[in-house]
Amino acid sequence: MAQLGLVGLGKMGFNMRERLRAAGHEVVGYDRNTEVSDTASLKDLVSALSAPRVVWVMVPAGEPTRQTVAELAELLDEGDLVIDGGNSRYTDDTRNAELLGRHGVGYLDVGVSGGVWGKENGYGLMVGGDEADVERAMPFFDALRPEGPREEGFAHAGGVGAGHYAKMVHNGIEYGLMQAYAEGFELLDASQVVRNVPAVIKAWQRGTVVRSWLLELLVRALEEDPELDDLEGYVEDSGEGRWTLEEAINNAVPAPVISAALFARFASRQEDSAAMRAVAALREQFGGHAVKTKKVSG
Amino acid sequence: MAQLGLVGLGKMGFNMRERLRAAGHEVVGYDRNTEVSDTASLKDLVSALSAPRVVWVMVPAGEPTRQTVAELAELLDEGDLVIDGGNSRYTDDTRNAELLGRHGVGYLDVGVSGGVWGKENGYGLMVGGDEADVERAMPFFDALRPEGPREEGFAHAGGVGAGHYAKMVHNGIEYGLMQAYAEGFELLDASQVVRNVPAVIKAWQRGTVVRSWLLELLVRALEEDPELDDLEGYVEDSGEGRWTLEEAINNAVPAPVISAALFARFASRQEDSAAMRAVAALREQFGGHAVKTKKVSG
Amino acid sequence: MAQLGLVGLGKMGFNMRERLRAAGHEVVGYDRNTEVSDTASLKDLVSALSAPRVVWVMVPAGEPTRQTVAELAELLDEGDLVIDGGNSRYTDDTRNAELLGRHGVGYLDVGVSGGVWGKENGYGLMVGGDEADVERAMPFFDALRPEGPREEGFAHAGGVGAGHYAKMVHNGIEYGLMQAYAEGFELLDASQVVRNVPAVIKAWQRGTVVRSWLLELLVRALEEDPELDDLEGYVEDSGEGRWTLEEAINNAVPAPVISAALFARFASRQEDSAAMRAVAALREQFGGHAVKTKKVSG
Amino acid sequence: MAQLGLVGLGKMGFNMRERLRAAGHEVVGYDRNTEVSDTASLKDLVSALSAPRVVWVMVPAGEPTRQTVAELAELLDEGDLVIDGGNSRYTDDTRNAELLGRHGVGYLDVGVSGGVWGKENGYGLMVGGDEADVERAMPFFDALRPEGPREEGFAHAGGVGAGHYAKMVHNGIEYGLMQAYAEGFELLDASQVVRNVPAVIKAWQRGTVVRSWLLELLVRALEEDPELDDLEGYVEDSGEGRWTLEEAINNAVPAPVISAALFARFASRQEDSAAMRAVAALREQFGGHAVKTKKVSG
Repeated sequence: MAQLGLVGLGKMGFNMRERLRAAGHEVVGYDRNTEVSDTASLKDLVSALSAPRVVWVMVPAGEPTRQTVAELAELLDEGDLVIDGGNSRYTDDTRNAELLGRHGVGYLDVGVSGGVWGKENGYGLMVGGDEADVERAMPFFDALRPEGPREEGFAHAGGVGAGHYAKMVHNGIEYGLMQAYAEGFELLDASQVVRNVPAVIKAWQRGTVVRSWLLELLVRALEEDPELDDLEGYVEDSGEGRWTLEEAINNAVPAPVISAALFARFASRQEDSAAMRAVAALREQFGGHAVKTKKVSG
Repeated sequence: MAQLGLVGLGKMGFNMRERLRAAGHEVVGYDRNTEVSDTASLKDLVSALSAPRVVWVMVPAGEPTRQTVAELAELLDEGDLVIDGGNSRYTDDTRNAELLGRHGVGYLDVGVSGGVWGKENGYGLMVGGDEADVERAMPFFDALRPEGPREEGFAHAGGVGAGHYAKMVHNGIEYGLMQAYAEGFELLDASQVVRNVPAVIKAWQRGTVVRSWLLELLVRALEEDPELDDLEGYVEDSGEGRWTLEEAINNAVPAPVISAALFARFASRQEDSAAMRAVAALREQFGGHAVKTKKVSG
Repeated sequence: MAQLGLVGLGKMGFNMRERLRAAGHEVVGYDRNTEVSDTASLKDLVSALSAPRVVWVMVPAGEPTRQTVAELAELLDEGDLVIDGGNSRYTDDTRNAELLGRHGVGYLDVGVSGGVWGKENGYGLMVGGDEADVERAMPFFDALRPEGPREEGFAHAGGVGAGHYAKMVHNGIEYGLMQAYAEGFELLDASQVVRNVPAVIKAWQRGTVVRSWLLELLVRALEEDPELDDLEGYVEDSGEGRWTLEEAINNAVPAPVISAALFARFASRQEDSAAMRAVAALREQFGGHAVKTKKVSG
Repeated sequence: MAQLGLVGLGKMGFNMRERLRAAGHEVVGYDRNTEVSDTASLKDLVSALSAPRVVWVMVPAGEPTRQTVAELAELLDEGDLVIDGGNSRYTDDTRNAELLGRHGVGYLDVGVSGGVWGKENGYGLMVGGDEADVERAMPFFDALRPEGPREEGFAHAGGVGAGHYAKMVHNGIEYGLMQAYAEGFELLDASQVVRNVPAVIKAWQRGTVVRSWLLELLVRALEEDPELDDLEGYVEDSGEGRWTLEEAINNAVPAPVISAALFARFASRQEDSAAMRAVAALREQFGGHAVKTKKVSG
């Protein structure tokens, strides 16, 4: 069994520590939240590990991750290895790898999929970096990935950045899949030809072409709330969908489904749409079509 | 100068009567609204016309038009001519032509564009039917169409149905054009890099590639309300956009822009989206992502 | 064990007969192809069954199914039951049910999902019609559906038409799901950041959010042909995608993803696009932008 | 009348020099192409101008423009003014303004619309920068813009970058407008209900809602080639469409029409689509649906 430093014990990192420990690994965790942290500081975490160290970073993408990597570059020694398992943009990986490389520290980027279910089911892992570093971290990957053949839940996707790139595309696909189910749900809901919508969706779990894990989650959600009436149709997006679309643009790849899914989320968060005010204004101008004007109180 | 019966004196028909009379034609109008009607009934209108008669129908598409045509089939005589200038679906035209044909009455379908501006500017006209019938009605078409070369504001598009088909596609295009301007407006509005959005849009009226009549209307709207704040982003659709999309489906023609414009209108009328509730539910299920739940009072 | 007449022994019907027989049912099959047919004619098939009969129709949707139902209406007796398991449009079901009803014959419509894998895995079933008829046919449904809880592979969706409606929406979703994976595949393929695309997609089978049966099929396809180079990017569509979009239009439900997936198929079948010729022509007109002109031989 | 240095005498710059000279201004032009250049080098151009100088840069966006600005920063003196009239990304403008500012040289960014027609019709102009600099360059703007009220063909859009931002959005809208017309054209072409498609489109020039300059250009193109058969449906994109979409993403603005127009261009350039090969592969896997395999010679 091996020893791992784990920085970031939030929703994902906390569960991963559990799964790694359950597999027999020694995990020393650090988080700013002292209630869950095993050490008082990042420095203490580094001191608590025997060289050559492996430190897995599991903090929010962007500045927090870049900052943590920069601090680790100062604290770690030649021969150590840093793994970024957050949802970083793949362009950050080159930067991180170069910075660490100047201190002789290796770097792997890992796309981690599975959400809150990963602790129990295992996490799908996509890794970028050098073969030797991947081999070195394999005991941790094997502990985190799902049961079954390694290649069905783990891939060494390519060089530095390839792991996060694969995860980015994975999430872009995920946007499209979710929106496809969602449009079908809305149509069933609106048309009222199907009397029992949750029962139909439940019945899609076996034998059908559309069966999937997301479908099973939709079944769960409908069991708790058959018309999803407790929720608002308000959906955040967290970066990967946007990046996927930007990559599609950069590579001149048509992405009508992924973009439609992203735009549906943007629209879901608008109280009112300036674009649709403009269309309403145009219709009023040329056709004298009735428009809705805002109610003014007082 | 010629004589025309005109059924339907609403927003469009009323103005058309004005323009036809201004051109010297004799127009006998009928409308259920006695304040604007020249005759007490459709029967009276027919009686007031000298055979062979030409009757222009300008009532709402669908059942009202079909009903009016059916009544005219009973009232008119062999050699008369009916023109449907409403926004009927082109599939109604075959029915109307057959019904009237059994009574020896001719039929033309006319797509009429121009909205409330037509009285002053003239109406763009697309006509379907037989050449001889088109020739017979040409004095009315010439009075209604804009100044300038006939072929720039009038087309004999083909046989029965072709006029409404051309108008349907015209309106489908119109949906796309409006949405394109609308997206641009929203982006300018949201990004705040451009300080004076109405001034920029106003400056697009001369010399640019995007200059158009719709753009001029948008300028007018922005002059009245620089941020279009008095309006709600709520937009109806009136049939032709849907029919265009259905025709695209029938002919296996990709129509991503026209469909996107139509869907944007659908979405603009939803208080809440069942689809986006489903996406929110899925995100909550797999990732424990925060969702917005509806506020419950009490 | 029960007795069933089965009309249509093509790719689907043939396999279903196998699965039904394996479950112990007596199946009398009829197909125009005498090599697979158990009887010489539809009439013989009816004669071979003991009243009250159940006849499952599994022939191509549209005219073939309507024709078969019309013939069965003449051949069957009061108290018999017809089940349409083909991919009929749900609007056909009302017609079929009325026609058969005039002869005292019951009717169920069943959406059947699972493709060529159904023989082994079982078929996902969505049924429309009366409760009593559904109960009567349940032994066949239980034989056809997958192992496991009945409600995970079978639903009584509602009255006549609801089964095909549910299947239609299922297939519309399927279009969207497939296109989402396809866009992701193309981006991975084009961007070349990920070195081993098939390995990454293979690794999505366990633990990830995008795992699904379709993904497993994509893995199989990539194992046979890692860049899918033996195929042309040419994709047919078979009705349900179009109908789903038409229903979305009818119900004013935004369906950007399902429509994008359908349009991508339309475009995939075009040698050249008239729309894009028009865009090229416009660019040439305003900007003198270079265009590709067709090569003229001789 | 005023004096202007003009760098870049390609399709746009050459015509602009003509228009400026026709308005009475003194223009000293420089281009690497000695056949059209008035001076032998950029240095000579600067020497030929009297201080304080105004130099308009009209070279390809990106590196060529950045390079030219960098050279001008070295050559010009405090109090001079540089105007970038190319299709630069607005983010370049801040850089350019800062670099020039360090030498005391002012900077304006100008979006110029109108293509090859600008020489005759005038150019639509959108300007970013300081009020004083705008005033100083106004004689040139007035010469270049179309006849008519200044504010209908010219706008001071905001600070540095706002001119190019406005032009970027203008071009994004243009993509959507062109695609809307193109989809309508394809549908008319495919459905064959309208007998004379060019005549119908020609008739849309007066009175209709869809009349525009782009429509007039489409009429011209159809007059030269009624089915646009000499062209291939192959369309380039030149930056602004992509940037508009990226800005939409950055500002969480739904842009379904502009993105669809951009993706249609991407798809138009693909010989074969990897995405559609993936969809074909999936259909083959689950349904045994026939696919097209590539013809193999030998």
